Parts: sequence; C-alpha cells; structure tokens
Amino acid sequence: MDLIIPTHRIEQRLLSMPPVRALQLRLHHYDGERLHLVAPLAPNINDKANAFGGSLASVMTLAAWALVSVKLEEAGLEADVYVQDSMLRYRHPLYDELTAEAWLAPEQSWEQFLTSFRQRGKARAQMLARICNAAGTECCSLEGRFVALAPRED
Amino acid sequence: MDLIIPTHRIEQRLLSMPPVRALQLRLHHYDGERLHLVAPLAPNINDKANAFGGSLASVMTLAAWALVSVKLEEAGLEADVYVQDSMLRYRHPLYDELTAEAWLAPEQSWEQFLTSFRQRGKARAQMLARICNAAGTECCSLEGRFVALAPRED
Repeated sequence: MDLIIPTHRIEQRLLSMPPVRALQLRLHHYDGERLHLVAPLAPNINDKANAFGGSLASVMTLAAWALVSVKLEEAGLEADVYVQDSMLRYRHPLYDELTAEAWLAPEQSWEQFLTSFRQRGKARAQMLARICNAAGTECCSLEGRFVALAPRED
Repeated sequence: MDLIIPTHRIEQRLLSMPPVRALQLRLHHYDGERLHLVAPLAPNINDKANAFGGSLASVMTLAAWALVSVKLEEAGLEADVYVQDSMLRYRHPLYDELTAEAWLAPEQSWEQFLTSFRQRGKARAQMLARICNAAGTECCSLEGRFVALAPRED
C-alpha cells in the first residue's frame, strides 16, 4: 500500500489543473521505475483524425513530471517540479489512446537525485518518455531535463 | 484582403480540434512573416498558478504549424502539415496570457520551401517560436522541424 498514496496524491495534483482535465488524463500504472499515464483519443484528436501533437507533448511531459513527483513524495520530500527543456520526436501518427510511459535516463539513479535534493534543496533528473500505439510501435518520444526545487520559505 | 482568408481558414482548422478549443486559442496577428496566437491563462494554468508546460508547448507548436499552413494556403497549395521534432526550452514561469510568436528560421526562405513543395509534393520548414511575458521577457522557446505533404490520392 506504500506506493498507492503518493501516486494518488500526484494524480489529484494533475487533475487540479484545468488543461490536464481537458486531456482526460489518468494515472494508469506505476511499478516503482516506470510510470504510465493514459488519455483517450477523442478529446485529443487533430484535424487529420490522429492524436494532436500538443496532447502527445503534454502527456509525455506529464508522465515524466509525475514520475519525478512520485519519487519525491515517496521519499517524504516536498518540492516544486518543473520541466526545463525537452526534445520531442514525432515519428508516426497515433490513432489509438495516448499511453505515455516515463522513466529515468539510465545514466542517473533516483538515490543520487534524492541525495542531491536533500543536500542542496535542488536536483535535476534526465527523463525519457514515449508513446507507443496499440501494435507496440513507438509513435513519439521525449528526452527532457526536470528540476525539483524545495519550496521557498517566504 | 488577400491575407485574411487564409488566416481565417487556418483558425477554423485549429478550432476544429477539441484539444485546441480547450486551450481557448485564437489567431491574434499575422503580418506576412510572423504569426501570433494567444490563449488566456485561466484554462492553461498549472498547480503553481502559472502557465502549464503542456499548454506552452502546444501554443508554440500551433503557432509554427499555423504559419506553415497559412503560407501554403496563400500559395493556393493543399497540404497536410506535421511537426517532426522540436526542442523546447522553459526559462521562466509565465503569469500572463500565452502569446506565442512563430517565424521561419533565418537560414530558410518561404520561396525555397514553396518551390520544394511544388516540385516534390513535400517540403520541410525549420521554425522558431517563443512566448514572452507582458514585460517582454522570453519565458519559453521552440525550435522545430515541420513537414508539409501533398494529400495522398487514394
């Protein structure tokens, strides 16, 4: 049950944002390493009857953001998580629901990230994400840097 | 009046997409070289009371997409325009409305792009976009490649 509470809290934070509610996003799966978000195609469709690029970008960015946020929540740390930059590649049109999977880049570890955050009140995570279609073909991918900052004490 | 019809047509195409309607986007300005889209902050706000990263990405991507589409419409060419890849940088949180400005990268020309499209039924445009806050500070930017394809004759 330990893992359920942070993911619920993150899903609530996601759904507190009007643009995220418009995507009709939900947290689909989290196994401790990879986090999956899913959104239906209908509210995210473009004029060519496939998934809108902006929605693909949003769902991948949010999956990565959510994974960083869950890792901090699990460790009992309060933080604001921001995306700093991202490289997005759109390879194939997607005609299925938008299922984004996010994970930490293999050259980094969550221990290192959390240690850095505890020591400096700030840490960076290099994240990867992708969306595959129902047949398993990768339709788009993200490489991005996310920063976690300890809340300022005003 | 020549320039008004293509921009109206593109705005209608934008607003035909449910995720774009959710952004409450409108075409703000087009001077033949730069195209501006604007969206209010309220439907695009995050949990930190500033503009949601996914909405920033969407509005910049759409401004670039719209400019490529308008250029093709003006030339009387029918095409499907897709984003292929984009590099997004988020520099400062935005607390104002989302006004995205898009333009062609300086190393390319629209003549070259349209000639290539007419000859091959396919052309690539390297696009730039940014969103500044009300004080004029650049909050985020996009560099992306867009491809225009002649509709397939099935």
